[in-house]
Amino acid sequence: MTTLVIGANGQIGKQFCELAQQAGTPVKAMIRSEEQAPWFKERGINTVIGDLEGDFEHAFEGCDQVVFTAGSGPHTGPDKTLMIDLFGAIRTADVAKKKGLSRYIMISAMRSEAPLEAPEKMRPYMAAKFAADVHLRNSGLSYVILKPGRLTDEAASQQFANSFDEAGDNQISRANVAYALLHTVKTPSVINQEYLLLDGQRPIGDIIQ
Amino acid sequence: MTTLVIGANGQIGKQFCELAQQAGTPVKAMIRSEEQAPWFKERGINTVIGDLEGDFEHAFEGCDQVVFTAGSGPHTGPDKTLMIDLFGAIRTADVAKKKGLSRYIMISAMRSEAPLEAPEKMRPYMAAKFAADVHLRNSGLSYVILKPGRLTDEAASQQFANSFDEAGDNQISRANVAYALLHTVKTPSVINQEYLLLDGQRPIGDIIQ
Repeated sequence: MTTLVIGANGQIGKQFCELAQQAGTPVKAMIRSEEQAPWFKERGINTVIGDLEGDFEHAFEGCDQVVFTAGSGPHTGPDKTLMIDLFGAIRTADVAKKKGLSRYIMISAMRSEAPLEAPEKMRPYMAAKFAADVHLRNSGLSYVILKPGRLTDEAASQQFANSFDEAGDNQISRANVAYALLHTVKTPSVINQEYLLLDGQRPIGDIIQ
Repeated sequence: MTTLVIGANGQIGKQFCELAQQAGTPVKAMIRSEEQAPWFKERGINTVIGDLEGDFEHAFEGCDQVVFTAGSGPHTGPDKTLMIDLFGAIRTADVAKKKGLSRYIMISAMRSEAPLEAPEKMRPYMAAKFAADVHLRNSGLSYVILKPGRLTDEAASQQFANSFDEAGDNQISRANVAYALLHTVKTPSVINQEYLLLDGQRPIGDIIQ
């Protein structure tokens, strides 16, 4: 069971690939260029070159499921939001469907279901995430949508919450997102589910099951 | 059979509303504010206030089909592309479906099916149109997608082509788009069809049927 990681060179992507490698969970890291390869090769992580704004279909060969953690967060320009978070997500879901992959795991964002409730500056980004999520739900693929809160660079507490009331806050460390992602990848029975993910007090298996 | 016009205050929207009014085809023009109303009232065209980035669901009351000609073309900022061309299109399609409208007629763009073949600067806009079209196709609504070429301000020739070879060019006047739109609105038997629309040599009934 090999997992293709789209957006492997991002902050969450790298942490997830490293965790997966340490856990003996096979991953293939899709990267944009050979210049990004050494970090992965030093850690024994398989890579494949693919361009999310161009050709990437070959990267799916031999993969059983896919993780989408490409993109930008709300602070990249909206041109990239359209090309990566929206169109890249749609195209990869369509390829995953065509190739019969067993599951598509999307890193979305908290409150992506309600873009108009976001602060005005973040609404275009949230609209892209909303549309990508809708497309995935309608794709016919088995999917999991993870919706992390505001991302921080704290260490992994490995403790989670999945409501704002429970968390008392709206943040989560990238390390915790990577950890939750690995748990999801290793739990193939979880399909067609969506989870808000925040730092909290509970083990991940209590939330994603 | 009343047609709700979303984006009525745009260049194509205004020309279409005026043509429809002259033809005795009932339309309701959705406009953003009372300040936009006089132009329509002078011509006896019904209006309703609705905000495509806010509340607009009430505008659908009493309407049987909808025309979406809001948005921007590729030269508006990508923030508006995300909020109007993408998210506005998705939300209006979802409301049309919920309210049981008989048809959704979308003004898309030539080559919206292949954003990566567009010049690089236009790709984000084309990606938004691509995603809006996909959502409409998957919505369960009866739909028509019109894909005009590069828009000009020429008078209506009322003559069309629907391939680049046939047209020998890639342009169409806004007046011709409005004319084709009226034909489509008046031809309810046309459903689940997509048409490239260019200036040419044939009557519209030869193409949209």
